[in-house]
Amino acid sequence: MLRHFTQELEELNQKLLQMGALVESSIHRSVCALMEQNQDLAEEVLRDEPIINRMEMEIDGMATRLLALRQPVARDLRLLTAALKINTDLERIGDLGAHVAKRALHVMHLPIVQQMTDIPKMESLVRSMLHKCLDAFVESDADLARTVLLSDDEVNMLRDAVYGELLETMRREPSLVPAAIDLIFVARNLERIGDHATNIAEDVVFLVEGVDVRHHAKLSA
Amino acid sequence: MLRHFTQELEELNQKLLQMGALVESSIHRSVCALMEQNQDLAEEVLRDEPIINRMEMEIDGMATRLLALRQPVARDLRLLTAALKINTDLERIGDLGAHVAKRALHVMHLPIVQQMTDIPKMESLVRSMLHKCLDAFVESDADLARTVLLSDDEVNMLRDAVYGELLETMRREPSLVPAAIDLIFVARNLERIGDHATNIAEDVVFLVEGVDVRHHAKLSA
Repeated sequence: MLRHFTQELEELNQKLLQMGALVESSIHRSVCALMEQNQDLAEEVLRDEPIINRMEMEIDGMATRLLALRQPVARDLRLLTAALKINTDLERIGDLGAHVAKRALHVMHLPIVQQMTDIPKMESLVRSMLHKCLDAFVESDADLARTVLLSDDEVNMLRDAVYGELLETMRREPSLVPAAIDLIFVARNLERIGDHATNIAEDVVFLVEGVDVRHHAKLSA
Repeated sequence: MLRHFTQELEELNQKLLQMGALVESSIHRSVCALMEQNQDLAEEVLRDEPIINRMEMEIDGMATRLLALRQPVARDLRLLTAALKINTDLERIGDLGAHVAKRALHVMHLPIVQQMTDIPKMESLVRSMLHKCLDAFVESDADLARTVLLSDDEVNMLRDAVYGELLETMRREPSLVPAAIDLIFVARNLERIGDHATNIAEDVVFLVEGVDVRHHAKLSA
């Protein structure tokens, strides 16, 4: 073997971050496409989805190969299993970005969309959660990862505000029901992106501290 | 080490199957609770969710420990990484069952529910997908796993039928909008259970054949 294990792990991290950046950008562009009724942008997100999928398969291959060849223990083993999990979460976030882009194409040009100011707020929040948990992964910063776990309530509040407004719209104006359903799914997809960011944050805490904070086993900072 | 590695892998498989059985039962009971407006049954599903979560953490611990202590290669390594992934999917399916149970409690006693005959059909289909992919895992049966991949279209058709009917209901009767939204989410949750079963089936094909069928890289039987 010519290269050092540390160098291989570094490459794996870089690949994950590269994928994370593309996934972040997909979330942002899909909601911009929705709000600005920009068809090109939505189609761009859909074209990027297969690229994200390919990255997932590559990273999975790299991590599994390192598990087999290097037979790591302790922290290196946790790093590789964390990478496998984070990889899956990133790929699912990529899917969710593509779902939002599809909804954007579906509701294009309906006036209802312009009023949903809480949807861009949700997008910005969950994207910042994702960014923070990936930073926390690279920096091995468990405290930063824990701040992501605390954003959950804010995501839920924004989601409830979006739902409330849309239910009212549908009651008042039945012809807007199909468009409102699309926007309800957009809010739900953004909420699920927040859930995946939370999963990643939990994996980072486990990676750094060896403490399992899933299922609210331990949330205090 | 007193025990054989094979025996430890067998224990891990048994744990996964035990979790799979509980998750299957959660899906079934949550939709029964919805259709029969049975509050006790819905609450039972919610009480089982933390048990499923604990099982996930146990299985994760077992698989990671075996990776560290046994340093497996080839098929045993694939088996352990597959177990880690299947474990995550089963836990998420458990969450989705609990979501359905919550919706069931929310729409309890509303007449709209009784008409949704396609929802029990979806439940029965995705539960059978889950059952088949877990059988395929235990039997290392890639062909059985591939049959799960083919059920995707049927799930989508049923979901479209449910959505169509509910959109019509909301247009006709705006007072039913909140209940209809609950049922749309039930259908969406069932669809996602089907997606997780598909993930598991893909992991089984990879485990048995070493062929990656994710992202439709290869679907032919």
